[in-house]
Amino acid sequence: MTEQVSASAPQVAEDVLLARAYLSRVAEAPAVALAGFVAEVGPVEAAQRVQEGRVSEAVAGETGARRVVQRAAADLDAAAAVGARLITPEHPEWPQWPFAAFALTGQRELAPPLALWVRGPGLLAELCEQAVAVVGARAATSYGAHVAGDFSAGLADRGFTVVSGAAIGIDGAAHRGALAVEGPTVAVLACGVDRAYPAAHQMLLARIATSGLVVSEYPPGSVPGRHRFLVRNRLIAGMAAGTVVVEAGLRSGAQRTAADASALGRLVLAVPGPVTSGLSAGCHRLLREGALLVTRTEEVLEAVGRLGLDLADPLGSSDSRPTDGLDPIAAVVHDALPARAHRDTRWLAMEAGVPIGAVRVALVDLERRGLVEHCDGRWRRPRGEQP
Amino acid sequence: MTEQVSASAPQVAEDVLLARAYLSRVAEAPAVALAGFVAEVGPVEAAQRVQEGRVSEAVAGETGARRVVQRAAADLDAAAAVGARLITPEHPEWPQWPFAAFALTGQRELAPPLALWVRGPGLLAELCEQAVAVVGARAATSYGAHVAGDFSAGLADRGFTVVSGAAIGIDGAAHRGALAVEGPTVAVLACGVDRAYPAAHQMLLARIATSGLVVSEYPPGSVPGRHRFLVRNRLIAGMAAGTVVVEAGLRSGAQRTAADASALGRLVLAVPGPVTSGLSAGCHRLLREGALLVTRTEEVLEAVGRLGLDLADPLGSSDSRPTDGLDPIAAVVHDALPARAHRDTRWLAMEAGVPIGAVRVALVDLERRGLVEHCDGRWRRPRGEQP
Repeated sequence: MTEQVSASAPQVAEDVLLARAYLSRVAEAPAVALAGFVAEVGPVEAAQRVQEGRVSEAVAGETGARRVVQRAAADLDAAAAVGARLITPEHPEWPQWPFAAFALTGQRELAPPLALWVRGPGLLAELCEQAVAVVGARAATSYGAHVAGDFSAGLADRGFTVVSGAAIGIDGAAHRGALAVEGPTVAVLACGVDRAYPAAHQMLLARIATSGLVVSEYPPGSVPGRHRFLVRNRLIAGMAAGTVVVEAGLRSGAQRTAADASALGRLVLAVPGPVTSGLSAGCHRLLREGALLVTRTEEVLEAVGRLGLDLADPLGSSDSRPTDGLDPIAAVVHDALPARAHRDTRWLAMEAGVPIGAVRVALVDLERRGLVEHCDGRWRRPRGEQP
Repeated sequence: MTEQVSASAPQVAEDVLLARAYLSRVAEAPAVALAGFVAEVGPVEAAQRVQEGRVSEAVAGETGARRVVQRAAADLDAAAAVGARLITPEHPEWPQWPFAAFALTGQRELAPPLALWVRGPGLLAELCEQAVAVVGARAATSYGAHVAGDFSAGLADRGFTVVSGAAIGIDGAAHRGALAVEGPTVAVLACGVDRAYPAAHQMLLARIATSGLVVSEYPPGSVPGRHRFLVRNRLIAGMAAGTVVVEAGLRSGAQRTAADASALGRLVLAVPGPVTSGLSAGCHRLLREGALLVTRTEEVLEAVGRLGLDLADPLGSSDSRPTDGLDPIAAVVHDALPARAHRDTRWLAMEAGVPIGAVRVALVDLERRGLVEHCDGRWRRPRGEQP
């Protein structure tokens, strides 16, 4: 089995890989003291000293309970058996820049991952170069699922990776939207990548593992727990330039992802919905707190995309009326025009409350625009135009 | 008829009233030059000189076409005949402070009204003291109409006047919401107060005229025109501390009211809706441009109400879970608890990745909260609690 591991990750020395595999199991994420220790002495020495208990009190607190568990090689084998592999900060496919934000926050809850178990052909660093997280409620409405799918297809179609959590509801719709246009998508799990959770998404996860990437910081066989879902959310936020919350209750994991995104310096975007829907209440609260309101893929792209290259066309710019651009006097004269009987200029001046000379000027403009019909020096609206 | 006019407006000299009635017809609103002239020389002299044509070119441009029209007394009679009256800046019921903003903007489109024709028992200045405009699309959806009615009933119930434009759709729902709780409401028309426009709202307007106030700057008999609807909107915005746009297309009068409110230094609030609805697109654009998102009456009150006295309770503050407030280690231990077989502290430490001493501390806290069951030094979740 050692050959397989080497073959799938020839860039990283085997002792480093084994050390990182050990470290990924020894502490429950997020492990801020351990992450700092590994950054200081390197993964091989860190693993060695954790095993021997020669660490600071803080690191011991995070690692003491499991330090005798020796499953690194077995975990790498278990991963290889399902076509998965371990990637580490030493791999070129590790998203160095996006993940640098974790340590910068200084927050315990936002400790960087020590390694990631991944399954699929995608290269994580490349996938994170242009990535948007699309997240939301499990109990999504058909409205939310529609919008999540629509946005995600639009984003993936423009080459953006859709990152989500593979849950029922919004997450599933987001992944499916990306897959529908054969676009890139990453599912970040709260359990081992060898497990299909939720079970209903077994096929979906298999499809993502075929074309995109299924990712977890938990070693193979790990079971999901409520705490892990919340901890996992920081990775979703951390892989993306922005997090779009499509539907969310007031108490939801999506709110946590949004908070993590904000703490990591990433954009928080939210989709509005009916104020009568409890599943939009979380989005509305985010919007009231400063999140960016988005209604179309283009608006998401404008916010997270390359400066100046992904600008959304303003809505309504092509929705013009013949009376657009009329000066105020011409607009008043136009309003005064009768629909049936033709009327003379004096009558129009009186009706519009505009000097007769100004009425004449306005009529020239209106005639040029086809907004007036005349007959023997008398005027009315063109037939078919509604007053 | 002169007695009637005097009886209904004893506070203002008859020559002033006649002069203001004349001025309200001689120029098509908004008449910025005439307003300035009246402010300078007073209404009686201004009316005299306009009639005689002894005015500046700017004032002549606004008044020349209709200056010979002598209908002041007839208009006052026509108003009295339908139970209406003319109120002017000289009346104590004129909303001096709210309307002072018009002149301050310096914008031609936001010239102050020269007088207002009003119908109903309400006193405008009092009604404007705590007022919110609730406006939106004619072609409202049932969602929009529901929200408009709900917000307006809530506002009126708290003593706020609901100002709107009496149109079909959102406007009508807003007035009806206020009337439903016997609250104050003001309808601002784009035609004479003696006309029922739209015709379908004849009964509604009659009800408003019985309990609130129907208002127009156009003299009796005036017909509505598209231009007048837009000009009228500045009065709706000007009477209220804030304008709530409930549903609006991208091209709509409600957008103009919002722009006027903003120019007058008033708050612009908007109700979100489905991004798939064109009738929420205008609201979403306003929100993207900085309008305040509101989902409940309380949030409107918090924005427009008295500082500190009308604060909305944060949503979700009463929606707590037993696991709220657990420290991170207790949360991880709680996640690790088995649902069926009891497990010992060592097993829990391993599962949770937490030192055994910390597990013991966490279990004390969990037991105090009823989140753990023990038996012979072994632990599990309480029956009935879902993992």
